[in-house]
Amino acid sequence: MSVDPLRHIPEATVNRLPLYLRALVEAAEGKHPTISSERLAERAGVNAAKVRKDLSFLGSYGTRGVGYDVEGLLFQIRTELGLTQDWPVVIVGVGNLGHALANYRGFGARGFEIVGLVDNDPSKIGEEVAGVEVRPLEELGDVVSGTSPAIGIIATPAAVAQDVADRLVAAGVSSILNFAPTVLSVPSNVSVRKVDLAIELQVLSFYNQRQSETGAAAG
Amino acid sequence: MSVDPLRHIPEATVNRLPLYLRALVEAAEGKHPTISSERLAERAGVNAAKVRKDLSFLGSYGTRGVGYDVEGLLFQIRTELGLTQDWPVVIVGVGNLGHALANYRGFGARGFEIVGLVDNDPSKIGEEVAGVEVRPLEELGDVVSGTSPAIGIIATPAAVAQDVADRLVAAGVSSILNFAPTVLSVPSNVSVRKVDLAIELQVLSFYNQRQSETGAAAG
Repeated sequence: MSVDPLRHIPEATVNRLPLYLRALVEAAEGKHPTISSERLAERAGVNAAKVRKDLSFLGSYGTRGVGYDVEGLLFQIRTELGLTQDWPVVIVGVGNLGHALANYRGFGARGFEIVGLVDNDPSKIGEEVAGVEVRPLEELGDVVSGTSPAIGIIATPAAVAQDVADRLVAAGVSSILNFAPTVLSVPSNVSVRKVDLAIELQVLSFYNQRQSETGAAAG
Repeated sequence: MSVDPLRHIPEATVNRLPLYLRALVEAAEGKHPTISSERLAERAGVNAAKVRKDLSFLGSYGTRGVGYDVEGLLFQIRTELGLTQDWPVVIVGVGNLGHALANYRGFGARGFEIVGLVDNDPSKIGEEVAGVEVRPLEELGDVVSGTSPAIGIIATPAAVAQDVADRLVAAGVSSILNFAPTVLSVPSNVSVRKVDLAIELQVLSFYNQRQSETGAAAG
């Protein structure tokens, strides 16, 4: 099953690989040796045909009537996502969210190691969070050159997020994860992903509303 | 454009509606009166055919050569997602993440009002966060009966998340947003959504790895 490591994988498929990964980790924890595309689809919130199509881009086709080998597919998706190596991460903004992210166990478990913390609040400088000392924003360049983070996380208020993004880019960071509720402008060689903490609340809202409407219709 | 409010919308489509909503809000902020399905697809990270299919479930088809009316589609998706009404929310776990969520501006802006905060740490009880007093976990039932939250957010460590979920369900909360890195068991009439803060980091990891490989191949 040799696969060209640089073949094209559609962006939408890439976006779903972490969902499949999470479903597979749960299956592995439940000691399931195999998983059907239907079950994988259900746990990832997509349909089974899409699962099969997505995984075919990885050269993975499963076995008819049996499904996919959980451990094998886990390894394959982890390799595809680059999770078999560690990625150093710097967090800018050490407020409540930055603290929570620095201490979030789900990062370390998946190879994202926090190597730098930066803030512009003098009262936070020198504080140690998750074993890392908070450095001043002015020293971001030094932090980046000293720790070579692959990814910069912005956990600041929206008003300063663009300035922070500019500084990260100037320091040589080309992947940014933005938690600030604002759209960032960056050069085309820089990847930015945005986390919107309200997305899932909105999905719950949909089902809540449906439930009330059904209740009203039935009542 | 009268549409049966209880017609079926596929789960995967519901999951994408918040992405379209975010893209449309950005388009509205950029003063764009219309948006093409291609542009909407790009901003939401899916393909244009899927955008058209998804929006057709809402009875929205756009205009050939013009695209979708941004304000009209915004209203339609907000209505569909139940965002034209407010949803009271209770947060259990007022550590760093709970603090960050209680203060997250993106919630209030979209109609999610924090009406209750609960923690089991005596040092936090009575503290006021975002204008709401932190109450002890034992009083969760009272908090729920007094504020009728539509949604409970679990922002506790993984070890106590199931206990908290059981308490929320016992108190009558039937929608749960879980930030704890664990799988919850709940009755079938309870909706649970999980937020995994590492999902987007993994997508960045994919592109980072690609970039290194391309660099290595070129070098």
